[in-house]
Amino acid sequence: MNYFRAEFFDVYMSYHNNILLDKLHGVPTDRPPVWVMRQAGRILPGYRQIRKSVSGFKELVKSPDLIAEVTLEPLHELGVDAPILFSDILVIPEAMGVDYDIIEKQGPKFPNPITSPADIDRLVYGEDVLDRLDYVFESITKTKARLSGSNPLIGFAGAPWTLFAYMIEGSGSKTFAKARRFLYEHPKDSHRLMSRISSATTAYVKQKIASGADVIQLFDSWSGMLSRAQYQEFCLPYISAIMEAIEGTPRIFFPKGAWSSIPDFGDVPMEAIGVDWRTPASYVREHLGEDLVIQGNMDPAFLYSDPDAIQSEVARISKDMGNQHIFNLGHGVYPDTDANHVKAMVQAVKSLG
Amino acid sequence: MNYFRAEFFDVYMSYHNNILLDKLHGVPTDRPPVWVMRQAGRILPGYRQIRKSVSGFKELVKSPDLIAEVTLEPLHELGVDAPILFSDILVIPEAMGVDYDIIEKQGPKFPNPITSPADIDRLVYGEDVLDRLDYVFESITKTKARLSGSNPLIGFAGAPWTLFAYMIEGSGSKTFAKARRFLYEHPKDSHRLMSRISSATTAYVKQKIASGADVIQLFDSWSGMLSRAQYQEFCLPYISAIMEAIEGTPRIFFPKGAWSSIPDFGDVPMEAIGVDWRTPASYVREHLGEDLVIQGNMDPAFLYSDPDAIQSEVARISKDMGNQHIFNLGHGVYPDTDANHVKAMVQAVKSLG
Repeated sequence: MNYFRAEFFDVYMSYHNNILLDKLHGVPTDRPPVWVMRQAGRILPGYRQIRKSVSGFKELVKSPDLIAEVTLEPLHELGVDAPILFSDILVIPEAMGVDYDIIEKQGPKFPNPITSPADIDRLVYGEDVLDRLDYVFESITKTKARLSGSNPLIGFAGAPWTLFAYMIEGSGSKTFAKARRFLYEHPKDSHRLMSRISSATTAYVKQKIASGADVIQLFDSWSGMLSRAQYQEFCLPYISAIMEAIEGTPRIFFPKGAWSSIPDFGDVPMEAIGVDWRTPASYVREHLGEDLVIQGNMDPAFLYSDPDAIQSEVARISKDMGNQHIFNLGHGVYPDTDANHVKAMVQAVKSLG
Repeated sequence: MNYFRAEFFDVYMSYHNNILLDKLHGVPTDRPPVWVMRQAGRILPGYRQIRKSVSGFKELVKSPDLIAEVTLEPLHELGVDAPILFSDILVIPEAMGVDYDIIEKQGPKFPNPITSPADIDRLVYGEDVLDRLDYVFESITKTKARLSGSNPLIGFAGAPWTLFAYMIEGSGSKTFAKARRFLYEHPKDSHRLMSRISSATTAYVKQKIASGADVIQLFDSWSGMLSRAQYQEFCLPYISAIMEAIEGTPRIFFPKGAWSSIPDFGDVPMEAIGVDWRTPASYVREHLGEDLVIQGNMDPAFLYSDPDAIQSEVARISKDMGNQHIFNLGHGVYPDTDANHVKAMVQAVKSLG
């Protein structure tokens, strides 16, 4: 318990619902806390209405009042234990000077991706990115004000490799071959770029915490693209540095698909690890011990089943995961999911224990 | 050795280069055999010229003389130990009555995918698909004639789940959520569809062997989408049935990304398992023993490195994989790879041992 800062401890004790923080803090809880990746989004009617009222996804991301609205909707609509600030991992590349657009049904496109080591020179990094991210911090302040002490707020960022992958590939990809080519062709410059992304991300998550985020989750969405050796060389040192810099705030690391690196995660400073629906708890426990909290790992496609089946699956997963567990999906909720099924899942978790 | 049919044994002994069959047959070899997934394709100049001479990818797939040409090009251009018949896993859905197009830079699109259990009724399956696949068998005959006993020929098919995923999703996908939804919403009909795909695939690979294919590889490209429990229920019985039906011919199973199911593969009848570049040999050996041949697993992005680095990586992988090993990439070669680098990899393997 002593590794949390005292001032944080006081804040967390004041929340009406602090089961998520209890779990991350090592305090026993009588059921797992529950929230849902992408809970604030297309599955909810309020979100869809707000999304229609703006010109595009990026306008929404930069509108603090709307962000607060969208962030808080899942609290009353789904009954989750904590909201996660609605945002985008790509705000960091943009703040560093690599702009992007979101194309409907296609995803992100970067008109000027990084194509050579010289492109790294022009990037903004470290605390210099913060001015360009004021809208995020203002969104946190507004969300916290409306929460008025009812629940803690989760903030997030992309892990450096995932941002590196987008900044070089210039879009989503099945293989991220351009980004991986860069690692092999320019190993030193790859470290330089990872280092700049990390310094920007560190400044960003620190400022998120200063603005009121109570928990930070790092998403490494494309970690599954790399071999264990490359993940060790190009990713782990930067993830550890970011996590180290925010010690005192509960940290969740979600290295999607990086199963072969799980044995290496014992040295990453964190309170919880997120795992997808293909990752058995036993495998994580074998390599990372009994104490680390595991977050996940219901298959988001399971929510297409009927509510009775969902209730049984919740019970099965909860039994499998054991006590050190935050209930969540193993991936963001799919956009065509019936919100009532998500609610059934949340209710099933809440009736456990 | 006794599990190979005698008539097959006679054929295989007659090849000039039979190192691949030796390895799959349990006969010691002084170096690993080597071939490359997608070796016959865009990295080679002859292929690109032939591709330009036809109206589309599907016309090429249905032109036996061109197929023979394209299939054999990597033998002399890259020096691999065996050719793999150029084809497409989606010829089976098409023969079953679910037609598709290949859209440039997008991939396959199915104008009439399976959207309900009733759609399964109209499918052609079992041996009834064979008439519609004559062009594949003719391609094998022509390729074998031109090989005139120099090397064995690899044939392949998609595993049932991967074909199921395309037939329901109607295209490629990051999540295959529609196909996975079908599994949860219609489990019985999912088994019925898997069973029909399996019967068609079994008839198909048997006829491929009868036409002259010496080795069969089953690609389960989307196996990594499913949890271990779903893979056990919906996939393994069908894969085992297909493999069982062609006992006597060497079988390679490539379950891409299905790492959590590796402990279950001990019961699948096969001579070799393909693994991607994220899968350590030690993990496979731990679960499947020392005898099974492992195929793979160089990162295709490593081929962007210079030839000296490629040579070192070949030596490292070969040492890691041990003796029961077929050298290959852990995924199809990327289309922008320099063919000279692939050649350097092949030469490095050939100079081992």
